[in-house]
Amino acid sequence: MPHIVKSFDVELGKLEEGLARMGGMAESQLTGAIQALEGRDSELAGRIMADDDKVDGYETFINEQAIKLLALRAPVADDLRMVLAALKVAGEIERIADLAANAAKRSLVLNQLPLVAPMRSLIRLGRLAQIMVKDVLDAHLGHDAERALALRDRDQELDDVYSALFREILTYMMEDPRTITSCTHLMFIAKNLERIGDHATNIAELTHYRVTGKTVLEARTKRDVSSFIGVGGDLPDPG
Amino acid sequence: MPHIVKSFDVELGKLEEGLARMGGMAESQLTGAIQALEGRDSELAGRIMADDDKVDGYETFINEQAIKLLALRAPVADDLRMVLAALKVAGEIERIADLAANAAKRSLVLNQLPLVAPMRSLIRLGRLAQIMVKDVLDAHLGHDAERALALRDRDQELDDVYSALFREILTYMMEDPRTITSCTHLMFIAKNLERIGDHATNIAELTHYRVTGKTVLEARTKRDVSSFIGVGGDLPDPG
Repeated sequence: MPHIVKSFDVELGKLEEGLARMGGMAESQLTGAIQALEGRDSELAGRIMADDDKVDGYETFINEQAIKLLALRAPVADDLRMVLAALKVAGEIERIADLAANAAKRSLVLNQLPLVAPMRSLIRLGRLAQIMVKDVLDAHLGHDAERALALRDRDQELDDVYSALFREILTYMMEDPRTITSCTHLMFIAKNLERIGDHATNIAELTHYRVTGKTVLEARTKRDVSSFIGVGGDLPDPG
Repeated sequence: MPHIVKSFDVELGKLEEGLARMGGMAESQLTGAIQALEGRDSELAGRIMADDDKVDGYETFINEQAIKLLALRAPVADDLRMVLAALKVAGEIERIADLAANAAKRSLVLNQLPLVAPMRSLIRLGRLAQIMVKDVLDAHLGHDAERALALRDRDQELDDVYSALFREILTYMMEDPRTITSCTHLMFIAKNLERIGDHATNIAELTHYRVTGKTVLEARTKRDVSSFIGVGGDLPDPG
C-alpha cells in the first residue's frame, strides 16, 4: 500500500528494481553457460565467467539499499517482510549466477577433450533449470505465492532427471575409462544445475513468505537419490 | 553498549546464544561426519543425517528472533549490524551442517564398497575444514575481526589441498576403473568439504562486517583450480 512518506515507496521500488535486474542478469548467465556447453564455445564461456562480478555488484547494491531502509525507515509488517525477503532472494540469485559461472568454467576443460555422449542429457537438465529460474523470478516479482509454490514440484522433476543423468555418466565412464576426466566435470556441472534448482526453490519459498507472511512449514522431500547411487554394487538402482 | 531498554539486550543475547548453540551443533555434525567416514560407521552416519533437522530448527529460531527484533525494536548502527549478521551467519552455518550431512549420506555408499586409498587424504581435508569452522565460530562469538580475517588464508590452504586431492582421486580411478563409483562419491565429499571452507570464510567476512561495520572490499582470490583440471589432456597440471 502507499505510504505517507512517499520516498519510502521510492526506496522500496529501487529494491524491487534491483532484484529484477539482478535476476535478469543471472538468467542470461545461466542461458549463456548452457549455450557455451552445447556449442563448445570457449569465448562465450570466458564472458560468462567475467560477468559474474556484475551479479555480485547487484547483490551489494541490494544489501546496502536494504540496510539503508531498515536503519532509516524501520519498516514493519509487509514492508519489513519485503526487505528481508529481498536480502535473502539476492543471496539465492547470487548463488545461481555463481553456479552458472562455474559450469562455464568447466566447459573450458570439456572443449579441450572429445565430446562425450551424456552431454546431450546434461543440456536437457540445463534447460529444465533455466525454465525453473525464469518462472520463480517471474513469480517473485509478480508477488505470486501460488505460482511460486507450484515450482517445488518442478524441482522434484529436476532432481529425478539429475539422478538419472548421474547414473548415465557413471555407466559411460565405466565403459570407457578414457572419458573419466570429461565425465567427472560433466558430473559436477550436473550437480551445479541440480543446486540451481534448489536455489530456485528457496526463492519460491521466500516469495511465499514475502507475500503471505507465512514460512513454508511442509518440509521438502528431496528426491535426488544420487548420493545413494552405488549402494550394494557398482551400478544398482538408487536406494 | 548497554541500552536503556534492558529487554533489548536480553533479546540480543538470545540471538547470540542461539548462534552459539547452532554453531556448536554444526561443528559436532561435521566432526561426526568425518568420524563416520574414517571409521566406516554407518550407524553414526545415520544419526548425523537425522540430526540435520535440529540445525534447521536453530536457524528458524534465529530468523524469528531477528525479525522480532527488527520489527519491535528497529535497531540501528551496531545493533542493526549484529541482527543482520546473525541472520546471514545462521544461513552459512545451516549450509555447513547440510554439507556435513550430505558427506555422511555418501559415506553409507562408501561403506558398502571396498576402501579406496584417497580416503586418507579426504580425512586430512576434513580435519582442515573442521579447524576452520571451529576457529571462525570462535572468532564470530568473540567479535574478533582480526582473527576472522586471518581465516581467509586458511581457506586458500584448504583449496590447495582440495585441488591436489581432486587430482589424486582422478588418477586413482583411471588406474583402477573398478573404483569409479567410490571415487566419484569421494570427489563429491571433497567438494562438500571445500564448500564448507567457503562458508566458513563467508562467516569470517560477516564477522568483520559485524564488528567494524565495513564489508571486506578486497576480493578473495580463489585458488581452487580443480574446475580447470583436465585441460589439454587426461591429467595435466591445473590451468
